[in-house]
Parts: sequence; structure tokens; C-alpha cells
Amino acid sequence: MPIATIEDGGILTPAGFSAGAAACGIKSEPGALDVGLLLADGPCSAAGVFTRNAFAAASVQWDRERLPSGDIRAVIVNSGNANSCTGAQGEADVVTTADLTADLAGCRREQVCTASTGIIGHLLPMDKLAAGVRDAHAALGSDAEAARRFERAIMTTDTRPKAAAVRSEVGGTAFHVGGACKGSGMIAPNMATMLAFVTTDAAVAPEMLEGLLQASADRTFNRITVDGDSSTNDMVLALASGASGVSVDGPGPAADAFAEALEAVMLSLATQIVRDGEGATKLIEVAVSGAADAADAETAARAVAESQLFKCAVYGSDPNWGRIVCAIGYSGARVDPAATSVRIGGVCVFRGGVPTGEDAADEMAGDTVAVRIELGLGDGAATVRTCDLSHEYVTINAEYHT
Amino acid sequence: MPIATIEDGGILTPAGFSAGAAACGIKSEPGALDVGLLLADGPCSAAGVFTRNAFAAASVQWDRERLPSGDIRAVIVNSGNANSCTGAQGEADVVTTADLTADLAGCRREQVCTASTGIIGHLLPMDKLAAGVRDAHAALGSDAEAARRFERAIMTTDTRPKAAAVRSEVGGTAFHVGGACKGSGMIAPNMATMLAFVTTDAAVAPEMLEGLLQASADRTFNRITVDGDSSTNDMVLALASGASGVSVDGPGPAADAFAEALEAVMLSLATQIVRDGEGATKLIEVAVSGAADAADAETAARAVAESQLFKCAVYGSDPNWGRIVCAIGYSGARVDPAATSVRIGGVCVFRGGVPTGEDAADEMAGDTVAVRIELGLGDGAATVRTCDLSHEYVTINAEYHT
Repeated sequence: MPIATIEDGGILTPAGFSAGAAACGIKSEPGALDVGLLLADGPCSAAGVFTRNAFAAASVQWDRERLPSGDIRAVIVNSGNANSCTGAQGEADVVTTADLTADLAGCRREQVCTASTGIIGHLLPMDKLAAGVRDAHAALGSDAEAARRFERAIMTTDTRPKAAAVRSEVGGTAFHVGGACKGSGMIAPNMATMLAFVTTDAAVAPEMLEGLLQASADRTFNRITVDGDSSTNDMVLALASGASGVSVDGPGPAADAFAEALEAVMLSLATQIVRDGEGATKLIEVAVSGAADAADAETAARAVAESQLFKCAVYGSDPNWGRIVCAIGYSGARVDPAATSVRIGGVCVFRGGVPTGEDAADEMAGDTVAVRIELGLGDGAATVRTCDLSHEYVTINAEYHT
Repeated sequence: MPIATIEDGGILTPAGFSAGAAACGIKSEPGALDVGLLLADGPCSAAGVFTRNAFAAASVQWDRERLPSGDIRAVIVNSGNANSCTGAQGEADVVTTADLTADLAGCRREQVCTASTGIIGHLLPMDKLAAGVRDAHAALGSDAEAARRFERAIMTTDTRPKAAAVRSEVGGTAFHVGGACKGSGMIAPNMATMLAFVTTDAAVAPEMLEGLLQASADRTFNRITVDGDSSTNDMVLALASGASGVSVDGPGPAADAFAEALEAVMLSLATQIVRDGEGATKLIEVAVSGAADAADAETAARAVAESQLFKCAVYGSDPNWGRIVCAIGYSGARVDPAATSVRIGGVCVFRGGVPTGEDAADEMAGDTVAVRIELGLGDGAATVRTCDLSHEYVTINAEYHT
């Protein structure tokens, strides 16, 4: 299937959706958008992938109970307050928010998903939020500007909005997958979370959508790391309107085409998060091949991507491959030093357990650093994406005060 | 048993040892000490605890093969070069170094332990090192100044030498345990490692020494973290001369007294490493109690201690307890939010799944921040010590160039 990237596309590229946003004063900056509403024209198939954090936020618990579902109409999101670690009152506030959204949308509360991102441990200011939900509904639109405003409404420490969309086809009928996300630190300063919302105008059965979403998340959002902290509010929600006429109801070419389009959007969104990681100046791609199995490949790639020392070296454009080898060595992945090689960009720096003596300094100069690790033991492969660790990361996370 | 801390004590406090140091030019700063020799008057019982890194350095492999042993005479250490990822030539260089040390000490190469710390992936400059070993032997002494010079000879990015010693007694006979260590980043800029050397004038059977050393390391050195990176060269070596007349040959009061003295020295050394962590401005003690089991306690404590976000918050003196709760939540330890409470210093900030509303800002002001987490599930307890994450950490690790 040929996949076409749609420039400036996003959650409203697939047919069957509208979006609205409002500024209700949860964020302290005057006029900053902090409420977003994604509304489907009719009942959607929907699925989610959620944080495994034991202190999952109230919105996560609410959504988990109703997904996958074949009957979702709306997603209401606020930024600036995570509504996490807020106990029974936090749970009640989610119900109130879903009720209000359902009233405005003309649906039942069970058809509304919720999401929050921001400071942990503070109750939502419900008066402000209620006004924001009403304003966001009043502002609903289906043009590119509406999508842009929704993208901005879900941001916290993000420096720019993040969106992606593709077009593909099945049997000559076109369908679309679009998405928007936010995330900069896995927790930003007191702001929790990564959130992603994916829409499609393909029709996809709920359980099938969930399976494809989970598989794609495992290869995209679950393989990025800014700082190794996974928040209380992380979620990826997918809504399928079916408006394109393309139907995905079981394994086969349609499912393959949809999975490919879904993963293209998810990978674009995930990569945008890492590029905009707190303080990031460079994107780092750590690709491991030849691992004993796939789990080992991910373990080794993740250890390198989470090594503070290596990430500082990348910030300093220093081809300090000793820190790569060290991280592989303590990762727990099966390793034979004599079978291991490491490349930075196009330069092999380590082979057969010894340094090659090649200088990879030039490979560190750009805004993307590619690390290729071959373990020489089997067929396991995985790629984990991260960003460098800069002074600005420390500034963002130390100088903010609760 | 009453344990007395000996001010300015160190590896030469126990009877039966001498030490020497020299500057041979492995470190680039002119005159910087970079070779240290610890020599026992006679054969010692000795044991070691080593890195689990799959790319263990040649010195680690050499020592592992001969410990525990009842017949060790010397430890030769160089700083500035880790001799790690150096293949067969690196292994041969360890043998050469042990041979030279044995010739000077009048013993066999099998009686010599070796240790290296510094840049990964470079061959040792053997001409320089050989001269350094000879100079260090010629400089042997058993006074406090000799101990201080040894402590400096093993430093890399450490800003100060690290030593500790205690006196205890068994049945009215005094014995001593002393130690020296280095470590600042788990890997400093291209410098690998934590090294620690512990001496005692008690007589302790090799296997027993190994068991006690491992148990103590699990509660001290294995429960500190600066940046989560565990190096290719980490080791703790213990040498027991027996010169005090106190003998530890099986379970009982003597073993208890020795274990207590050993742990006091090990904890002091481990804490000194964290206090001098790269860029550290504050010591952070994370104590978890009430975990379902001991493993869960350590898992939860380690997740908090390794959270970059929390460590940045401590650097900024921000009582951002949401980052503590978040880290507990993703640690994998069994957690019941409603049973969890968190204290910072003397202030309880989170109890029963909800914020208390108390302000812990004053508890963040000093140079030590104490975090107490009660999980309310069982008897598991563990303490992990770390330091904050500062601009200086990034500077040290980004601005150094290979």
C-alpha cells in the first residue's frame, strides 16, 4: 500500500470529526489554551493504551473501564492539572466533566473519554473547567485551524504542537489516519504526561483497534524515552469513525494497510515528542540488531537510550562510545564482547571487543545521532529513540517551583 | 560492641599494611598522582565484590579468578585509564603489571590484585605505568600521609579523597577496619568507576570475608546511585592481615563485631561517594518501609533515587512530591495508593492516596534531603542514597571531550 504523508494534517484529516479548544485559566499564562474537545459525528470504535503507573490518574481509570468500545463520541482533555493522586474527589470530578461534555454533545457520559495532563496532586478547579468545556464546545470546527487549536490546548512544556496524518487505500478506496500528541518530559515540571489522540475514517472493530494500537504503541511510543520517568497520566486513544467506507474487520490486506498507516502516524508523533524533549538539542536513534532475542534487543537499546552519561556526551557532541558499550554491558542483555560492534553514524568505533581507532566526531555534529549496535548473537532487533541531556533540561526541571 | 570512628583514619589504620603512590603521566595534569600500591606485610585473606557489567575490565577478570584467597600480598591501582574493552592486549597488560608488582614486593603474581579506573577503550601506556609502579613501591610508607597519597592516586573526577576507619573489639582485644574509595559518576567523563579498598587487622577466613563483604556491599555500595550507570571497572576489595590478634572464623560474637565494623566503614565510604557525586549539591536518602517484601522496598527506593525529575527538583530545592509518588508508581513494586504515605524531612506531604496540603519547602533547604516512604503493605524496608542532578553534572559530562 502506498502511504502518502499529508502536510499539516492532524486529527481532523480523517472524515467524521470536529475539534474545539478554550482557555479557562487552569494554566497560569493569560489566554493559554487548556481545554480541548474532540467530537465524532457519530458513535466511534475506540481503543486506548494506558500508563502502567500504579498511581494512574482518575482520567486513566475512567477510560480503562470503557475501552475498547464501539460507542465513543467524545474526548475531553485539559492541560495544566493532571488530576492525579487526588483520591475520590478526583474520580468524582472526572464524572462531572464527562457528564457536562455528554450534555453538550448530546450523548451519554459512558460515550465520553477524558484525559488530563499537568501538575500532580491538585484538585481540578471545576468552575473554571466547566466554563472551558462549554467554550471548547462552542468553538467546535473541522478545519485546520480547529486542529491547531486542539493541539495547542493539550500542550504543557512542549515548545511546539505535534501532529501527523497519512492517507492510504484499500481496494481503491482511500482512508486516513491522523493524530495529535503532547509530551516533552515524561513528566514535565509538575506537569505530567504524554497524551496522544489518533483518529481514522476507516471502520475498525474495537478489539481489533485495541490490538493494533497496542502493537503499534509497543514499537513507537513505548520505545521513546526522554528521562525514563513514565507518568501517571500517559495514554494513547484511537477513534475510528468509519466515514471513509474502508472497513477493517479481520486479518487481511485491509488490516495490513491500516496497521501500516497507523504506525506511520504513531511513529511520527512519537519522534516529534523526543525531538521536543525537555531541553533537547539532538534526536538520538539507538538501533540494536543481532540480539539473542527481541527482548534483549530492546533491553540493550533502552539502556543506552537512558544512559545519562551518554546523553550528556551527545549534548557535548562527544563520540564517547565507551559509555555506549558500558550501558550495553550493564543492561542485562546477553552479550559476547568479541561479537559486538558499535557504529556511530557511518563510522564503526568498536568491533570484536576492541576499539577500531576510527574517529566519529563528525557523526555527532548534526541534529540527529544514529547509533547502530550489532550483538552478533541472533535475530533480535529493536530501535529506541531519545534526546540528549542538556543544561536546559536541568533548568526546566529545577527552576520551576511548586 | 562499641564502634569508635577514627578521625582521619583510612586503609593504613589497621596494622599490617603500607601504601605508596606516584605520578607517572597517565593523567594529563602534570604531577597528578595516578598509581597507588597497597602492600600487606604478609599474606592476607582477601575477597572482592565486582561489577556485573558484561564488558568487565581486564583487572576485574584477573581479580575474580583469584578471589577469595588466603594468600594476597598487594593491590596495584592506576587511575586515568580503565583498561576496559581492550581485548587480549589489555589482559596481557594486567599480567605484566602484576608481574612487576610481584617482583618489587617479593611475592608471586598470583598474590597481586589489580584495579584500574579511567577512560574506556584505550590501551594502558605500559612504559609510564611500569615507572609508576616502581615509584609507588619506592614511596611506600605506613603513616597518614602515605594513606592520603594513595587516596589521591585513585581519584578521577572526585573533588576530594574518601576514607574511613573504625575501631572495635572482641573479648577485650581491639581490631580495626579501614578503607579508601573513589567514585563520582558511576562513570565519570570517560573515566570509569567506583573503586573501594578495605583493610582490617582482624583475621577473617577468605570465604567468610567474601560473604560478609558481599552482604555489606548489598546494603551500602549497591544502594547508592549517582546516575544509574554501573561501570565496567567497579570493585570493592577487602584485605585482612590478622595483625590485631582478633580472629573471625565462624558465626558468633567476633563475626558480628567484625560485620558491624565493616559495614560502618563501607557505609561511610559509600555515602562519601554520593556526597561527591558529579555536580552534587545535596545528599538524598530515600528510605522505604512497609513494602510487601525487601525486594519491593529496594525497587521503589531505587526508582525514586534514579528519577532524573526528582533529582532536578531537589537541586532546585523544590518539594515536588508528585515526582516521588510517580516514581514509586512506575517502579514495579506492589503499591496500594490508599496505604501509601510520603514524608520529606519531618513533613508528611501525601497520605492515604491524597495530598495533605502540608508545605515541605523548608525541608529541602539543607545539604541532606530525607525522603521517607511508607507503603503500608508489609515489613520490607530499604534505603537508597543518591545526589541531586545539577547543571554541573551536565557540564562535567558534556564538556569533556575524548
